[in-house]
Amino acid sequence: MGTAAIIGSGLIGQGWAIVFARAGWSVRLYDSDAAKAEEARTLVARQLRTLHDHGLAGDPHAILARVAVAGTLEAALADVDYVQENTPEDLAIKQALFLRLDALAPAGAILASSTSSIRASLFSRDVPGQARCLVAHPVNPPYLVPVVELSGAPWTTPDVIERCAAILRDVGQKPVVVRREIEGFILNRLQGALLQEALRLAEEGYASVEDIDATVKDGLGLRWSFMGPFETIDLNAPGGIADYCARYNGMYRSIGASQVREPAWQGPAVADLEAQRRERLPAADLHERRFWRDERLMRLLRHKQQAEEEGR
Amino acid sequence: MGTAAIIGSGLIGQGWAIVFARAGWSVRLYDSDAAKAEEARTLVARQLRTLHDHGLAGDPHAILARVAVAGTLEAALADVDYVQENTPEDLAIKQALFLRLDALAPAGAILASSTSSIRASLFSRDVPGQARCLVAHPVNPPYLVPVVELSGAPWTTPDVIERCAAILRDVGQKPVVVRREIEGFILNRLQGALLQEALRLAEEGYASVEDIDATVKDGLGLRWSFMGPFETIDLNAPGGIADYCARYNGMYRSIGASQVREPAWQGPAVADLEAQRRERLPAADLHERRFWRDERLMRLLRHKQQAEEEGR
Repeated sequence: MGTAAIIGSGLIGQGWAIVFARAGWSVRLYDSDAAKAEEARTLVARQLRTLHDHGLAGDPHAILARVAVAGTLEAALADVDYVQENTPEDLAIKQALFLRLDALAPAGAILASSTSSIRASLFSRDVPGQARCLVAHPVNPPYLVPVVELSGAPWTTPDVIERCAAILRDVGQKPVVVRREIEGFILNRLQGALLQEALRLAEEGYASVEDIDATVKDGLGLRWSFMGPFETIDLNAPGGIADYCARYNGMYRSIGASQVREPAWQGPAVADLEAQRRERLPAADLHERRFWRDERLMRLLRHKQQAEEEGR
Repeated sequence: MGTAAIIGSGLIGQGWAIVFARAGWSVRLYDSDAAKAEEARTLVARQLRTLHDHGLAGDPHAILARVAVAGTLEAALADVDYVQENTPEDLAIKQALFLRLDALAPAGAILASSTSSIRASLFSRDVPGQARCLVAHPVNPPYLVPVVELSGAPWTTPDVIERCAAILRDVGQKPVVVRREIEGFILNRLQGALLQEALRLAEEGYASVEDIDATVKDGLGLRWSFMGPFETIDLNAPGGIADYCARYNGMYRSIGASQVREPAWQGPAVADLEAQRRERLPAADLHERRFWRDERLMRLLRHKQQAEEEGR
């Protein structure tokens, strides 16, 4: 167990505080607005009770006792093993902050950013300790969705990537390594590819928004919740994945040739998506529906844990 | 409750027999090779016991009693309400068979094909009763994965599509309607879009096969097992799906512009995929792993049923 500094106390920062403290780490929560950090700790306490009720966290009081609000950046970083930065998606802010993190954190500490859109090579370019800087991009909320994408700059050392992965595995996350910098990392690239085809199909009227959703949640998405796309096709041909590619590449190449048009992403097509969704879920219910989603995620996570414990 | 004729007794035919009989329908199972149909009924019996053990089917004996092997096509089709065809993916076979199905089945019966690759307009073109012919494409096994894609020819009447959807909902499936014929329907087009990007990322060395799989099973695939891609993004921006498109279209357009190269689908790139998978799962274990997958699907399905019963 170690000590993690969580810099920035918004939703993502709160999520990371839960992840580390739940796993037994000491957490220092810092925000340039001290009142926000105190409020964040209260929100963490509330979320811990919910997680405990779902069998996804131990004693909430004991966990919360490991989360301290730090009054200064210096105090947050003293003797930490790991730093997770969660400030707004603004390059200038991150560049300035990483200079300070590098100056104040112990030499061995890893400096990770939650950014989904700014490359490590951009925010760490002028940092003396740039070798220990990287992106550790979580999915929100990280205490329910375990994957974390690690993406270093060309100068981030392999040792730092490995130690970061080990720490994240230690606190129950599933780190994946992005070997070279690329826009969208892996997750948003895969999501984007599927979304763009979903948008094309909806725009061109091949199916309703509801039916496209059903095709995933009652079809494709079932296996993908416990096997990746490669594992899935590996079992869908007698001889495994190479056999699958040999059998079906003709169909997928032919389909792929018709999947090149960029969907509209705006205008009447998106107004139609919006109208179809609001028919199913009025705007006034969006907020409440997010609690429903998190409740379902918690149940799913518990289900997966049990299935993995009992399965081979 | 009605009577369904299942034509062709391979894995898909067996799956449909289970779906209809489990829901209380009478099933006539027919195969041009009578011994195969008898063997199929034995396999259905075995699968029903497993489903019963997982809380996914009632009394296996009572269900099996509703599955009769028909000795002739005439006997299979007498007085049926619904016909599901499951013969090899061969246009000539299906064209000849649909002429016979149309000649022998009661006038009101729906004639559906399980084909994943042959358009209804091709196999029903010369059929006098072409208005009642359509594709009802399941995912294997249909008793564990509920989505069924309905794709009619231009001459299939809306009434037939609606009645087919109603029947499939009645037996517990989730029909989705493909409004115009298109290669790959919806599911394989969505899967293809994601697979092609996954292949590109693996080929170009951005991540390992294992890490790409983890990005889905520990990330993207969690929500997609109970919400579709549109429902997901609808909750990922404060104002709903139109707000999401406005905020993130720049990122997805930019990513999309770099997702146009067709992946190799063969040669050294696929050999590398195969090698990475075989390191995790030796070829000798592929067969056994499919039982593990079905076991996990059964648990997941039961989990979803419980979550939906207890949720709002």
